[in-house]
Amino acid sequence: MSDKGVTPRSEDYSRWYTDVVRKADLADYAPVRGCMIIKPYGYELWEAIRNGLDRRFKATGHRNAYFPLFIPMSFIEKEAEHVEGFAPELAVVTHGGGKELEEPLVVRPTSETVIGHAYAQWIKSYRDLPVLINQWANVVRWEMRPRLFLRTMEFLWQEGHTAHATAQEAKDETMRMLDVYADFAVNDAAIPVVKGRKSAREKFAGAESSYTIEAMVGNTWALQSGTSHYLGQNFAKAFNIQFLDEGNELKLCYTTSWGVSTRMVGGIVMTHGDDTGLRLPPRLAPIQVVIVPIWRKPEEQTAVSERVGQVRDALVAAGVRVHVDDREGITPGFKFNDWEMRGVPLRMEIGPRDVASGSVVVARRDVPGRDGKESLPAEGLDRAIPDLLERVQEALLSQATAFRDAHLHEASTYDELKEIVTDGWALIPHCDTLACEERIKDETKASSRCFPIDLNRDWKTGSVRCPVCGEPAVGLAYFGRAY
Amino acid sequence: MSDKGVTPRSEDYSRWYTDVVRKADLADYAPVRGCMIIKPYGYELWEAIRNGLDRRFKATGHRNAYFPLFIPMSFIEKEAEHVEGFAPELAVVTHGGGKELEEPLVVRPTSETVIGHAYAQWIKSYRDLPVLINQWANVVRWEMRPRLFLRTMEFLWQEGHTAHATAQEAKDETMRMLDVYADFAVNDAAIPVVKGRKSAREKFAGAESSYTIEAMVGNTWALQSGTSHYLGQNFAKAFNIQFLDEGNELKLCYTTSWGVSTRMVGGIVMTHGDDTGLRLPPRLAPIQVVIVPIWRKPEEQTAVSERVGQVRDALVAAGVRVHVDDREGITPGFKFNDWEMRGVPLRMEIGPRDVASGSVVVARRDVPGRDGKESLPAEGLDRAIPDLLERVQEALLSQATAFRDAHLHEASTYDELKEIVTDGWALIPHCDTLACEERIKDETKASSRCFPIDLNRDWKTGSVRCPVCGEPAVGLAYFGRAY
Repeated sequence: MSDKGVTPRSEDYSRWYTDVVRKADLADYAPVRGCMIIKPYGYELWEAIRNGLDRRFKATGHRNAYFPLFIPMSFIEKEAEHVEGFAPELAVVTHGGGKELEEPLVVRPTSETVIGHAYAQWIKSYRDLPVLINQWANVVRWEMRPRLFLRTMEFLWQEGHTAHATAQEAKDETMRMLDVYADFAVNDAAIPVVKGRKSAREKFAGAESSYTIEAMVGNTWALQSGTSHYLGQNFAKAFNIQFLDEGNELKLCYTTSWGVSTRMVGGIVMTHGDDTGLRLPPRLAPIQVVIVPIWRKPEEQTAVSERVGQVRDALVAAGVRVHVDDREGITPGFKFNDWEMRGVPLRMEIGPRDVASGSVVVARRDVPGRDGKESLPAEGLDRAIPDLLERVQEALLSQATAFRDAHLHEASTYDELKEIVTDGWALIPHCDTLACEERIKDETKASSRCFPIDLNRDWKTGSVRCPVCGEPAVGLAYFGRAY
Repeated sequence: MSDKGVTPRSEDYSRWYTDVVRKADLADYAPVRGCMIIKPYGYELWEAIRNGLDRRFKATGHRNAYFPLFIPMSFIEKEAEHVEGFAPELAVVTHGGGKELEEPLVVRPTSETVIGHAYAQWIKSYRDLPVLINQWANVVRWEMRPRLFLRTMEFLWQEGHTAHATAQEAKDETMRMLDVYADFAVNDAAIPVVKGRKSAREKFAGAESSYTIEAMVGNTWALQSGTSHYLGQNFAKAFNIQFLDEGNELKLCYTTSWGVSTRMVGGIVMTHGDDTGLRLPPRLAPIQVVIVPIWRKPEEQTAVSERVGQVRDALVAAGVRVHVDDREGITPGFKFNDWEMRGVPLRMEIGPRDVASGSVVVARRDVPGRDGKESLPAEGLDRAIPDLLERVQEALLSQATAFRDAHLHEASTYDELKEIVTDGWALIPHCDTLACEERIKDETKASSRCFPIDLNRDWKTGSVRCPVCGEPAVGLAYFGRAY
C-alpha cells in the first residue's frame, strides 16, 4: 500500500525505480542478499509476460520441457569459453543428504551444458531434427550489486535450446526468436526495442554470435531485454551432439539458445513509469480497469453498487481484466493515488450522478489530469473500453518511441560520442575490437549496445574507419550507458 | 518412440511403471543421480495439471507469488520439529561467487520458513488478513532411492501458504484446499482419491495436523497425492507472524500450507495405465484425439488429406486438442501402437473408404479391440467427439473406482489386516500411536494411509479398541503398502 509518493525521476532515477517497485507492490528483498521475493502483483505481471511469450513459442513450433536444477561441475568445464564466463558467478552445492558430495553440483546459471548432454542421448538421426525445446525455470548467478528485477542472484526466465542439421537452419532459428522477442516487446510490452548483434565483448560465453533486443529506459540508459545466440558447433563438440545424415554420415549438430527473464519487468517499469508511479501497457496489465464506486450517503450505495456490478459483469464478459475497489474506510482520493501508483491503465469512477445520467467517468493513467478524463455512456462499455485500452497501448508505445528517437544520435568523432552518451545512445562506425570497446567503456562508462540490424543491412566492411581507434569499422554500433 | 511393448504389470509392476514412463516419452533420468528430465510430452501433462489446479486456486481467492530458492540454514532451525524432519534431506550451498559463504544456504525443501519470515514483515493488522498465496516452484529433497515422478531429488510443485486471524479460519482453509485437491483428482485426473487425516507418524514436520488425498494405484499400493496442513501457531511463533487485532492487541497468526507435485503424473500413470501403455484422462491429455490418415495409392492421398484437414479444423474450433500423425515411412499399425503407448484417449482413422462414405473410424483407448471402435459421420464431429471424450473420462473414473472399492476391506483382527494388505487396504479402528503403527509397518510393510474423513464423522473415541495393541482407537484408519 502506498501512502507516500515516489522520489522524482529527475532527483534520483535509481531511487525512483526502487520506490516504484516497492510502492507498487511488485517485489521485496529476500533475507538472502541478492535474492528477491516477487509479490503477487509483480508475479501477475510476470505471468502475463510468460503467457505472451509462451504463446509465441508454441506458435513457432516449440515445446516446453524441464531439465534439472543441478549440473555436475565437470559439465560446466567442458566448453572453455563457457566456464570462463560463468565460473565467477556460480553457486555450488557441496553437501547433500548430510554428506559431502564426491563431485560438487552447480546450481544452473543457464542450461546449455545439461541440455546439450541430454540432446546427445536423444538425437540419433536427421529425422530427429530439429529439436525445438524451451524451459521456464529459475537460474542462479552470484550477484554482488543486486537490484530488484534488473540484477538478482536468482531470477526466473525461459531458455530455449534448439538443435539443427545445418548452420543455416540454426542461424535462421536464432533470428526467428530474436524477431519473436521484438514482436513481444513492441506489441505487448510497448517497448520499442532495437534489434542487433552483440559486440565480441558482450556476446554470450560460448556463442559464435549473440543477438539482443535493447530497450532505452527513462534515463536514456540501455537495458538488454532478451538475447538469442547462435552457438555454432561449440556445444555440439563439447557434448557430442551428433546425428546420422541422409547419407548415413555422422555429423555434429548446430545449436542455438535464447532467453528472456524477469528483467523484462524492470524494463516495463523503467520504460513507462512516471513520477506518480507505474504505468502498465494494457496487454500485460494484471488489472486493466479499476472501478472505484463513489457514494456518501447510505441510500446512494445500493444504486451505485448495482451499477458497478453491471458494468463489471459486462467488462468481464468482454474479456477485460477488471477489479472493483470497494474497500471501506478509505477515501476515493487515496484509492486514485494507489491505483495510479500501480499503473492500472484505466480508472472508472461511478457515483450517484453517473448512475442517474447513465454514464461513467473514465480516467486514463497515461494522460494526467482533466485531459485524460471523459464521461462514457454506461451502455456499450463492452466495446468502448477495449477500444480505449488499445489507444492507451498505442500511446505508451508512441511516447516511448518518440523518447527513444529523440535520444539516438549519430557521432562522427569520439568527442561527439562522449557528449551524446551523457544523455542518449551514440551511433558510430565501430571496429568491434575488445581494446577499443574497453577504452570507450573506461573513458565514458558507455558500452557497445549492439550493431543494429536495420542500419547495417548495406554495410560494407572496409569502407569506413572507427572514429575512436582508426581501424576499419565492421558496422554501425550504438554505444550507451547500460544496466 | 516406442518400438517394443512394456513389461506386463503382472510380471513386474515396478518395471512396467518405468517402461511406460520412458516409452511414452514422459521423462528421462538426468546425469545427477536422483534428478529427472521432464520431456515435452510429460511436461505438457504437468502443464495441464498445473492449469487445472491454478484455476481452482484463483477461484478460491488465492494469488501466485514467488519466494527465493535459497534459505539461510538458521531459518530451517527455528522450528524444532521442522528441522528434525528435513535436516537429513537438505542440499546445502557452501560456496558462491568463488568464495566460501559465512552462512550456508539451504536449497528449499519446502518454504514455510522463508515465507513465514516474509509474512512477519508484511502482516501488521487484522486488515491484512487472511493472506492467501501460492507459489509454483522447484524444491529439492535429497533422495537415495529415486523413481521417476514418484520420488526425485528435485521436483516441481505448488505450495500454498496462508495466514489467518483465527484457528477456525485456518482449519477451514486447510479443509477447503483438501477439497480443491480432491475435486481436481476426481474430476480432472479421474483418480478416486480418499480424503483423510494423516497419522501422527505420517504428518508434516511442524504441522498440528496433516490431511491427504490418497490414491490407490494399479498394484493396490497407496500414493499420497496431495497434502494440506494445519500449522496452528507453530511457524507463527518461530517467525513472529503477528497482527494487531480489532482491539489493538498483538496476536499470533494461524497458518496453513498445502502442496501437490509432479508426483501426480506418476499417480495418473499408475492409476490408469495398462499393459499396452499409458491411458490419459481426456481433461488432462495433451493430445485428446490423434488422427491417422490412411492411404496406399498416391491418388488417394489428396482426398484423405483434405478430409483430415477439415476434421482437424472442426475439432480445433470445438476446443479439442487434436494432432494429425502424418509421418511418412511409418505404417498405420506402428502409429496405432505408438499412440496407445502414449495414452491418447481417442484415435481417429480416415482412409479412402471413410472419405467416400462420409464417415470416420474412432477407436477408444480405454476399450481395447473391436468393442472400442465405431464409425461416426464426419458431419457433427464437433459435438460427437467432445461427448465421446466425456464418456472416456467417466469410464476411467468408474473403472478406477471399482478397482479401488474391490480392494478396500474392513479388518477386525490384526491377522485379517495382514492378509488384506497383501492386495489392498485394510480399514481398522486404530489408536494412532507411533509404536503401534511402527509395529504394523515392520511386520506387514503397510503404513497408515489416513483416517478417512467420510468414515470418521460419527466416531466416538473410547468406544472401540485397536485390534493390534488393544489401546482405545481414535478412529478408523486405512493401512496399506505405499510409495
